[in-house]
Amino acid sequence: MENPALCGIAGIVAQADVCRDLYDALTVLQHRGQDAAGIVTCDQGSLKLRKGNGLVRDVFDQATMDALTGNMGIAHCRYPTAGSCSGSEAQPFYVNSPYGITLAHNGNLTNTEALTRELFRSDLRHINTGSDSEALLNVFAHELGVIRKLRPEATDVFQAVRRLHRRCRGAYAFVAMIAGYGLIGVRDPYGIRPLVIGRRESLIGNEYILASESVALDTLGFELVRDVAPGEAVFITSDGALHSELCAEASRLCPCIFEHVYLARPDSILDGISVYKSRLRMGERLAAKLTRLGITDQFDVAIPIPDTSRTSALQLATDLGIKYREGFIKNRYIGRTFIMPGQQQRAKSVRQKLNPIGLEFKGKNVLLVDDSIVRGTTCKQIIQMAREAGAHKVFYCSAAPAIRYPNVYGIDMPSAHELIAHGRTDAEVAESIGADWLVYQDLEDLVASAAEGNPHVERFECSVFDGHYVTGDVDEPYLDKLQQLRNDQAKQLREGTVAAGDSLANLGSS
Amino acid sequence: MENPALCGIAGIVAQADVCRDLYDALTVLQHRGQDAAGIVTCDQGSLKLRKGNGLVRDVFDQATMDALTGNMGIAHCRYPTAGSCSGSEAQPFYVNSPYGITLAHNGNLTNTEALTRELFRSDLRHINTGSDSEALLNVFAHELGVIRKLRPEATDVFQAVRRLHRRCRGAYAFVAMIAGYGLIGVRDPYGIRPLVIGRRESLIGNEYILASESVALDTLGFELVRDVAPGEAVFITSDGALHSELCAEASRLCPCIFEHVYLARPDSILDGISVYKSRLRMGERLAAKLTRLGITDQFDVAIPIPDTSRTSALQLATDLGIKYREGFIKNRYIGRTFIMPGQQQRAKSVRQKLNPIGLEFKGKNVLLVDDSIVRGTTCKQIIQMAREAGAHKVFYCSAAPAIRYPNVYGIDMPSAHELIAHGRTDAEVAESIGADWLVYQDLEDLVASAAEGNPHVERFECSVFDGHYVTGDVDEPYLDKLQQLRNDQAKQLREGTVAAGDSLANLGSS
Amino acid sequence: MENPALCGIAGIVAQADVCRDLYDALTVLQHRGQDAAGIVTCDQGSLKLRKGNGLVRDVFDQATMDALTGNMGIAHCRYPTAGSCSGSEAQPFYVNSPYGITLAHNGNLTNTEALTRELFRSDLRHINTGSDSEALLNVFAHELGVIRKLRPEATDVFQAVRRLHRRCRGAYAFVAMIAGYGLIGVRDPYGIRPLVIGRRESLIGNEYILASESVALDTLGFELVRDVAPGEAVFITSDGALHSELCAEASRLCPCIFEHVYLARPDSILDGISVYKSRLRMGERLAAKLTRLGITDQFDVAIPIPDTSRTSALQLATDLGIKYREGFIKNRYIGRTFIMPGQQQRAKSVRQKLNPIGLEFKGKNVLLVDDSIVRGTTCKQIIQMAREAGAHKVFYCSAAPAIRYPNVYGIDMPSAHELIAHGRTDAEVAESIGADWLVYQDLEDLVASAAEGNPHVERFECSVFDGHYVTGDVDEPYLDKLQQLRNDQAKQLREGTVAAGDSLANLGSS
Amino acid sequence: MENPALCGIAGIVAQADVCRDLYDALTVLQHRGQDAAGIVTCDQGSLKLRKGNGLVRDVFDQATMDALTGNMGIAHCRYPTAGSCSGSEAQPFYVNSPYGITLAHNGNLTNTEALTRELFRSDLRHINTGSDSEALLNVFAHELGVIRKLRPEATDVFQAVRRLHRRCRGAYAFVAMIAGYGLIGVRDPYGIRPLVIGRRESLIGNEYILASESVALDTLGFELVRDVAPGEAVFITSDGALHSELCAEASRLCPCIFEHVYLARPDSILDGISVYKSRLRMGERLAAKLTRLGITDQFDVAIPIPDTSRTSALQLATDLGIKYREGFIKNRYIGRTFIMPGQQQRAKSVRQKLNPIGLEFKGKNVLLVDDSIVRGTTCKQIIQMAREAGAHKVFYCSAAPAIRYPNVYGIDMPSAHELIAHGRTDAEVAESIGADWLVYQDLEDLVASAAEGNPHVERFECSVFDGHYVTGDVDEPYLDKLQQLRNDQAKQLREGTVAAGDSLANLGSS
Repeated sequence: MENPALCGIAGIVAQADVCRDLYDALTVLQHRGQDAAGIVTCDQGSLKLRKGNGLVRDVFDQATMDALTGNMGIAHCRYPTAGSCSGSEAQPFYVNSPYGITLAHNGNLTNTEALTRELFRSDLRHINTGSDSEALLNVFAHELGVIRKLRPEATDVFQAVRRLHRRCRGAYAFVAMIAGYGLIGVRDPYGIRPLVIGRRESLIGNEYILASESVALDTLGFELVRDVAPGEAVFITSDGALHSELCAEASRLCPCIFEHVYLARPDSILDGISVYKSRLRMGERLAAKLTRLGITDQFDVAIPIPDTSRTSALQLATDLGIKYREGFIKNRYIGRTFIMPGQQQRAKSVRQKLNPIGLEFKGKNVLLVDDSIVRGTTCKQIIQMAREAGAHKVFYCSAAPAIRYPNVYGIDMPSAHELIAHGRTDAEVAESIGADWLVYQDLEDLVASAAEGNPHVERFECSVFDGHYVTGDVDEPYLDKLQQLRNDQAKQLREGTVAAGDSLANLGSS
Repeated sequence: MENPALCGIAGIVAQADVCRDLYDALTVLQHRGQDAAGIVTCDQGSLKLRKGNGLVRDVFDQATMDALTGNMGIAHCRYPTAGSCSGSEAQPFYVNSPYGITLAHNGNLTNTEALTRELFRSDLRHINTGSDSEALLNVFAHELGVIRKLRPEATDVFQAVRRLHRRCRGAYAFVAMIAGYGLIGVRDPYGIRPLVIGRRESLIGNEYILASESVALDTLGFELVRDVAPGEAVFITSDGALHSELCAEASRLCPCIFEHVYLARPDSILDGISVYKSRLRMGERLAAKLTRLGITDQFDVAIPIPDTSRTSALQLATDLGIKYREGFIKNRYIGRTFIMPGQQQRAKSVRQKLNPIGLEFKGKNVLLVDDSIVRGTTCKQIIQMAREAGAHKVFYCSAAPAIRYPNVYGIDMPSAHELIAHGRTDAEVAESIGADWLVYQDLEDLVASAAEGNPHVERFECSVFDGHYVTGDVDEPYLDKLQQLRNDQAKQLREGTVAAGDSLANLGSS
Repeated sequence: MENPALCGIAGIVAQADVCRDLYDALTVLQHRGQDAAGIVTCDQGSLKLRKGNGLVRDVFDQATMDALTGNMGIAHCRYPTAGSCSGSEAQPFYVNSPYGITLAHNGNLTNTEALTRELFRSDLRHINTGSDSEALLNVFAHELGVIRKLRPEATDVFQAVRRLHRRCRGAYAFVAMIAGYGLIGVRDPYGIRPLVIGRRESLIGNEYILASESVALDTLGFELVRDVAPGEAVFITSDGALHSELCAEASRLCPCIFEHVYLARPDSILDGISVYKSRLRMGERLAAKLTRLGITDQFDVAIPIPDTSRTSALQLATDLGIKYREGFIKNRYIGRTFIMPGQQQRAKSVRQKLNPIGLEFKGKNVLLVDDSIVRGTTCKQIIQMAREAGAHKVFYCSAAPAIRYPNVYGIDMPSAHELIAHGRTDAEVAESIGADWLVYQDLEDLVASAAEGNPHVERFECSVFDGHYVTGDVDEPYLDKLQQLRNDQAKQLREGTVAAGDSLANLGSS
Repeated sequence: MENPALCGIAGIVAQADVCRDLYDALTVLQHRGQDAAGIVTCDQGSLKLRKGNGLVRDVFDQATMDALTGNMGIAHCRYPTAGSCSGSEAQPFYVNSPYGITLAHNGNLTNTEALTRELFRSDLRHINTGSDSEALLNVFAHELGVIRKLRPEATDVFQAVRRLHRRCRGAYAFVAMIAGYGLIGVRDPYGIRPLVIGRRESLIGNEYILASESVALDTLGFELVRDVAPGEAVFITSDGALHSELCAEASRLCPCIFEHVYLARPDSILDGISVYKSRLRMGERLAAKLTRLGITDQFDVAIPIPDTSRTSALQLATDLGIKYREGFIKNRYIGRTFIMPGQQQRAKSVRQKLNPIGLEFKGKNVLLVDDSIVRGTTCKQIIQMAREAGAHKVFYCSAAPAIRYPNVYGIDMPSAHELIAHGRTDAEVAESIGADWLVYQDLEDLVASAAEGNPHVERFECSVFDGHYVTGDVDEPYLDKLQQLRNDQAKQLREGTVAAGDSLANLGSS
């Protein structure tokens, strides 16, 4: 699959400076977004912020880290997005009224425009970026502000979150920090995006982390306590006391299935389900489908498209009793694309990223195993490479069903008409990418692969596969507008009219 | 005189993009502060900001300028300050509630701490930096917000400024911008810091500028309309209509005399007074004093300490009928001070900045003419250089009286105990700097030098000379605290514990 | 295995600008060295150079690429090295006499000091960096210069290389470029480091590439012609004619076995041997050894230490008929190590790089498969992680034999006393790393794994395993000196006395 | 006058690290060139180099300075030049054969092309940049190399310089350093460019400096010993012994008069002549001419065009007994020129640099005093400003005669057809710039102004005024070619095809 992406968030309350831990957390969550990173800490009521474009390791240096003092902080990394996740700004975002609140968000609101209008009318709040995250922060700030407490307590925070749930639509997992008071973690009533709670004992007392994925806990020595529940809010005071309350009137866990397909790291456990195990089961079920279809004797070897699909492909091969070979080598170092004078622009071929091992293809019938297929352009090039490497027949299978609908919940995925499976049958897709045949996982199998890991999760957010948007408010006009917005931004990027500098990002309500 | 400094501000409403004009305005105002620069523009209600440490030419590049679209904007340059002008952050500052307001401030509030407490109590507003400018912005925002108009009009703005005048103490000239609505210019009830209004006619309509000094108008082709009056507010709507109203209950023009002594460019006209002419008159009156003292036959030549004192020194020499010679050459390129291993740290001698022309000193009795004397360390080195260059006798005179008191109105000047004239008689200062004698301008002569330029200005803010603080609220405890603050910050700078990066400045309420 | 590293080199003569191809080649060879990169091109006799510290993608931008015109050029990437590969400078290196020659080197000379002395005495040539590569370039330049031809031809080049082979000791594969004339590729008489020739047909004529690994050819659309033979020189004139000649008096192919163990990409073919297949065979032979030892029933699953050992481990598991599971997840994003005030320095645990999947360890007896073991510190941490993840027993095997001797042929490996197997039996190493037992590949099996791929390669350079240095000139004093040099440089790095800037590198004979 | 410029050079042999002193020397010489800077030091035979584009203060930081160890070094700053001074590269330049020699050059060779050809033929030396300085270095290196001494002594150096004088044509003052041996200073047989010798006593022994201007000595505490004589070479061994010898067969001091007009700092003493005094005498003689012409009653005040002409203008006014007023204020901070979308490109008016003080012009007849007139475009704008400021009549005088010929000796001045006085009478120039009348200094007066300072200097290089080129080899074809080269480079600059990066400069024989 090609580069869908979203955001990673983390927040920590500890008994000592937290910036190093937040930095390490971002590094571990970097696979969720490589385009910008930010950390804000709170030291005796004063906020210290650093955010910028680039990888975590490029945004922070020793001098910056030295300045990010304080035992409480939040952090964010993100992918460049259009109309999703966070608008065009690096996070965390900031408002100074009330209290000084910062927020880092993963997901996408579907009623940003209405919220922005409301916020201006009700509170004269200016949303500068058009970002849903900025709107989200201001909704929270407004609802907390109207309580007008000099010192907000857990009950105040929960009341504000209750009102926020009533006003915001879409997917949102966020961490927020009230200067001098504490850390908040919230997950939308469907729990579409993940958020886990970890605890670590220090000599002085408990320390807590909130993070998008449990893998951040492993690395930092936190133990996984549990996931934040859908609609729940967690409030950890700056001295380390944890409060929580279910703040949504109705909530039903419905986590994004795509975290299991591609987004999350395999060593994460989300809503009690091991992502790694989910992928093993995707391999099992895909093997079973191939067996059912009676086509398992057509190929000699299963070859994964690295890296994600290796887990499923290995299990599939094991179950089918055929050879598993890593026939493609991934280049870990990616160069830029330069425009050379007097030469036509050259598309960076997929060869820059993947190279076939000739002997694994020569004269063989190969089954290529992918995690999912989005635009199909990479698939097509890969299949062609396999044939050029001497493959006799090239079959293709995808551990996920056909992707036919856009994502509105924070994944940076193309709009419908760019999806190769949009409006195409499986056979048409196969022909389009040049495969001898193509087999997609069935949706019920995908869901079962994840669901088996935790029987309490009854339902998953599967809209990219089935077009059913759980929040109930996504209609054609919204999708059309989303597509238009995406096109406009892509055009701006092409024309170079979008400002690059992180300094321009200062107004993102921070 | 050695490097006192403050801030420069500008704001423009035009019929086309304003960022290039704001950039040029900052360049012309750069002498008021070289440490940080910022511009924010407003394009169809959306704010675009860039600010950072360094000279104007280093903070902005073409890509940044391309992104700063919009026909309305404000700009700021500043000197590194401790407890004055703007705290530790680059400006403009921003709050998103209400409306989206940005502000650039020149001056210093003397009741910042009380305001910060009040703002939290009355409106839960968080002031993150301890900067008086951030507090000032939040007072304005709060007072405008409580009116709760969806669309603020001139009367609302004036009402807010009226309340601001009641709450804020100290010196403040500021420009602020309400996203989508207009530009505001305000001067405190004493008019301590300067602010002028300029107009330029375009094909489409009037364009207005507000700036610290009239020289910015000359360069950009604006005509000087008038100064903003003390306690007045000017509101220029985004379509170019100018409204103004006196918003202070009591106001009395009392501009800072030090603008004429040193701070302002000679080609500026402030409160109707040509700075250049003021300095000529300082030379005249100083010549008259020397004549009165009967010591004009003791020296052969008058030599200015470049650059500021040249104007006074030339006039003084003309009046006395003695030779005027530029005996010191100023090095325009200043290098850094490096610490070399195995060598003791070496103070950059004044030789790096000034070099004497031997023949103008050899065997002569020279009168060195300075604009003012602050710490006296540079004077001492200069006098020593003059002697080493062969001067027989070295006399010193200062176009300003002895500086004996700290400044609390936005000039970055040392605290009392660092001032060489603090607690010393003129003779003691002369001995301390090694002059054969030293003559200071009398305060009444200095005041008269400026006042002659505009009889309507009856009084000047002269606290550094006479210890009288016009705002009436500066007492010993305040001055002690200011000194403590300055010492702490100097210590932090020495120990390198203050963060350097402009990115950390993002939270300065922006 | 932990980070051994060396250099990658490439040179191209084409019919159009070559800098983009050289850039892409460096990107594909980046796994051979991530610390510095450089490209020099030749346009109508004039050289264009860019080199600097960092990844290829960080050293070059569009403006730089635009300036690197010319249809001929060479490129280099390298690892920070001590006494090996290239000294402390980024390459390519340059001398202007004779002709203007640039050179990029992979390997290490063992008689640099003597050469440097000789070069000064015979030709007054100054070697500024102490780098063996600078000496190598000057030897070549001197030998070509003494022929004194205005226009050097193939026979001149070959004569110079003949003399170079007589003077230089150690390992060297290099590409050099004579401004205006052509490209040279040379491999030492043992062919210790790899160098391959590729050809691509353009509409105008043949284009040639020389590169460290064949994978660079695949990506750029070149076909593999053959390897440069040991002791051979290849001269490609700037118009695309290829000449070659064996220039060593005695030569015997003896390529570095460690390229197959770890250094080269699996999809490369070196000296006719597929690296991928070598690794498969390492897995086979290791499986056979385990079977011979009768211990294959002690473990339930084979788990590779990613990434290199996956190929061997999969084959080993297949042969043994046991489960193969990717139980460790590698973090692709590595953060920096910051020193936080008030906290003790914290070693970045291996957890930052690898994270275990609990379920693959819990209650199991696992066999961890590594490519090789150098210092053993990472092994130890990994084994501990496996136990903490619940493994019952943890066995360890290495696809390469015990590393007991330092490398002097261009691989950045620790000195003898830092190698865990130096002076230890296998059982002692097992105890030291905490494994229940440890099995190393036998050296004859390792050699056979590679040799099977090309029966014409009769011998390999295996000194890190057997202490036998094929060049015959490596003695105890040399090794002692190497270790001292390494210690000194490590000390300088710790103390921060080594200059960072690439600009200081300018003198590396460039 | 508008921005003519050239280069500044310095070299020091001391008893301790010299980089800080070289840095300070460059800062003081920065007025001679602001576009690039470089320092190379020598520490126990090893060279340390840093050079780059920008001001001295931007090219060097603490880490760089820490790396520039050694008690001997040379330094260079330069203006961007076309066909003069140093070609397109930052200096110092480097060759490694023989000995390791670095060189920093001020001036311009007029036979670079022939030298480049010869160097290739005689020694196969490649000149990569087309720079005359690179050719100069290689001539020196070649001539020193053919002596083939293992350890070069003073006599060898002088012999090499003798041969260099025979081969090189044009203007050259240079400092060079032989790694491990010593520092060399050379001035061409006409002594066109300045070079002075200074001595400072340390506790350990003598320390020497060579520098373009004596002002560098003042700042660093060196005493002026004397100027390097025309055709002389000075060799200072690394332990501080100074040797010198006249190495030209025929030499005659003929220094560039333009150093006195504009280039040098007034506080410098060149060839025994105080630049400041020269300028005073230019004022005197210009006053005398005005008196002779009987036009001194036509104007009320003399106003200098800052900064250079202040010295002459003040003396002129004193002699004429009229008022001297600084009517123009110079802006010390210059911004960039940005191209704004949707607006036509706007020439930065001279207003950005100079601003008139209205009262000094209003209703007055003013005499503007300039140091010289090159293109005349600035003059024209200044005169217009004076009129707009209310001047009744505007007269113009120039302390130098009409500039009618190009400079080929290292000053970056336009080619003939861009000079306003080229092919125009004084009256035509006056009309062209809009002056009521214009008076140029007579050439004999200019020469006398300088010559009076040292009767031993009988002749000056005055080619820009009289078209007489003292080196006798400058003919029409050469000048045509120079103009063509300049046009080509200007075109490249406009089209942005010239590479910006300093890293590309690495090959400039360094």
